[in-house]
Amino acid sequence: MSEWRHDPLTNRWVIIAPERGLRPNATRQEPGCGPLTDDPFAEGCEDETTPEVLAIRDSHSVPNGPGWQVRGISNKYPALHPDVVREVHDDGWFRSATGGGVHEVIIECPHAETHLSRLPTEHIRLVLQLYRDRLAILRREGRWTYAIVFKNHGPAAGATLGHAHSQLMALPFVPGVVVDELAAARRHRERIGRSFFSEWMDRERTAKSRFVHESSGHVSFCPYASRFPFEMCVLPVEPSSHFDDISEAYLSDLAAHLKRLLQTLEAAADDPPYNFVLRTAPLRDHETIDYSWRLEILPRIGRVAGYEWGTGWFINPLPPEIAAEKLRAVLSS
Amino acid sequence: MSEWRHDPLTNRWVIIAPERGLRPNATRQEPGCGPLTDDPFAEGCEDETTPEVLAIRDSHSVPNGPGWQVRGISNKYPALHPDVVREVHDDGWFRSATGGGVHEVIIECPHAETHLSRLPTEHIRLVLQLYRDRLAILRREGRWTYAIVFKNHGPAAGATLGHAHSQLMALPFVPGVVVDELAAARRHRERIGRSFFSEWMDRERTAKSRFVHESSGHVSFCPYASRFPFEMCVLPVEPSSHFDDISEAYLSDLAAHLKRLLQTLEAAADDPPYNFVLRTAPLRDHETIDYSWRLEILPRIGRVAGYEWGTGWFINPLPPEIAAEKLRAVLSS
Repeated sequence: MSEWRHDPLTNRWVIIAPERGLRPNATRQEPGCGPLTDDPFAEGCEDETTPEVLAIRDSHSVPNGPGWQVRGISNKYPALHPDVVREVHDDGWFRSATGGGVHEVIIECPHAETHLSRLPTEHIRLVLQLYRDRLAILRREGRWTYAIVFKNHGPAAGATLGHAHSQLMALPFVPGVVVDELAAARRHRERIGRSFFSEWMDRERTAKSRFVHESSGHVSFCPYASRFPFEMCVLPVEPSSHFDDISEAYLSDLAAHLKRLLQTLEAAADDPPYNFVLRTAPLRDHETIDYSWRLEILPRIGRVAGYEWGTGWFINPLPPEIAAEKLRAVLSS
Repeated sequence: MSEWRHDPLTNRWVIIAPERGLRPNATRQEPGCGPLTDDPFAEGCEDETTPEVLAIRDSHSVPNGPGWQVRGISNKYPALHPDVVREVHDDGWFRSATGGGVHEVIIECPHAETHLSRLPTEHIRLVLQLYRDRLAILRREGRWTYAIVFKNHGPAAGATLGHAHSQLMALPFVPGVVVDELAAARRHRERIGRSFFSEWMDRERTAKSRFVHESSGHVSFCPYASRFPFEMCVLPVEPSSHFDDISEAYLSDLAAHLKRLLQTLEAAADDPPYNFVLRTAPLRDHETIDYSWRLEILPRIGRVAGYEWGTGWFINPLPPEIAAEKLRAVLSS
């Protein structure tokens, strides 16, 4: 059973999760996923996976059988468990809690496909819809305080299975980085009287040099202080604190926007491994104009090493202006 | 020329360093360093490297020639440059500064050896002595505010050359993680009236289960909230804020301690890639009992992925108690 542990010097919570060591390829550094020919995520192999939590499936189909388009299941090697009784230990120094939380896998398509970007826009929309619907349920349930959706694409980005999938985790604590972001954005609004995110978008729109793509509902750009080559940030045109409040129209727009960005990234940067992270406001926070959800696309080009561990900061060899120029060249070709 | 850029949402400084993209293997994810047969760091190849900054060498030898044991040089592909005029740009949103700082490579031995752990203890002492002496010079000069020494061992840990080497960087800003650590340690001392680091050491010594090794001047253990399998922390028995204040006797003790730890790690965990980070107090801070330098050894077993980027937190599949038990078993065998 996993455990939350607190580090008193850095105020960091770490999940100690022995089950995770049992995953296929869990501790290998070398690229190499399981072959897609032996694919537990494929339609028809539902009995090889844990039971589904939420799926988008044909109306005549039944849970845990074929006939689905996107399928959310519990992680087979979960870092967190929803059903543990919360127990906290604190001896005045070492603090721990039972490993409560949610750790789910979202299988993005029923057939053997490695790339989210290669799915039709309407199918990507279903993936985003499942993110939204699952986040909405977790928010209503009110049991956890923070939820994050992320994707590890490619072994070098942490994927241990090749079939296109993303993950959702719900936590009993709000990460310090999120607390700090919320505070910075609130301070900005209090000082300037305007949403941090609206101003950010306007600043990048005006600067032009890092701008990548704009659709009716979303803008994307390579951030000014990008940590990684070809890093991209997608913001909704109208800041909205919680992703699960996204409308049907904006969901379709985001799907088309994301497909174009990923296809463009793959063409511009030689199909790199990447992570993406959907950051949204804490589950129990009220909707606020102070904050907005955003999608961060983090290509794993270059390596994280001693400097990054030591400082929490980054060295990026590719100026975001050059990255954006290359991405725009692909977009307009 | 590189540039410091500030991210207003996360308060993170990123170094945009186009020169870094020119390194051999800089953007490759696959393991594979240059072969040691074509080794620019070897003795006799001094004219293939940038000029030396500080070296430990035979008394009859001359700088930038053979006859050295440990050699500190400027990084050939520096992320930061010591000689740039400081210029700051701030338009009320985007802040940048010219890429001032120090980025040096410490070549740990004159012959083609990949592993620091395989050098004799007395030679490792010289490596640590060079760290100390260079940090002392930077502290006296007073030009930069923070310096960090780190090592990337193995391509998966970020090394682009196989010959054993470490790096030193001096920065114009104190990283937020260090500011937060200093504040946490100070709060502790103000509340409890005792050094955080003394208490930390005592707690781990009493707990025993995560303890790895104790020598006359240093203790090492797998931290309670370890981020990585086999992560280790080395603390001086007498907390000392600045590493460059370390005595001759403690330097020798640390060399022997570190050699044993690295040999033990390599035996227990199949010679893994690793980073180590020497954290010390900011260069301009006065000596303080509130803080202590420490050495963090971070094996790169497992992968950093979407969860870690999204939360700043970690999932570790190996409980530190089990890691420490395995390490102790090697130590006592």
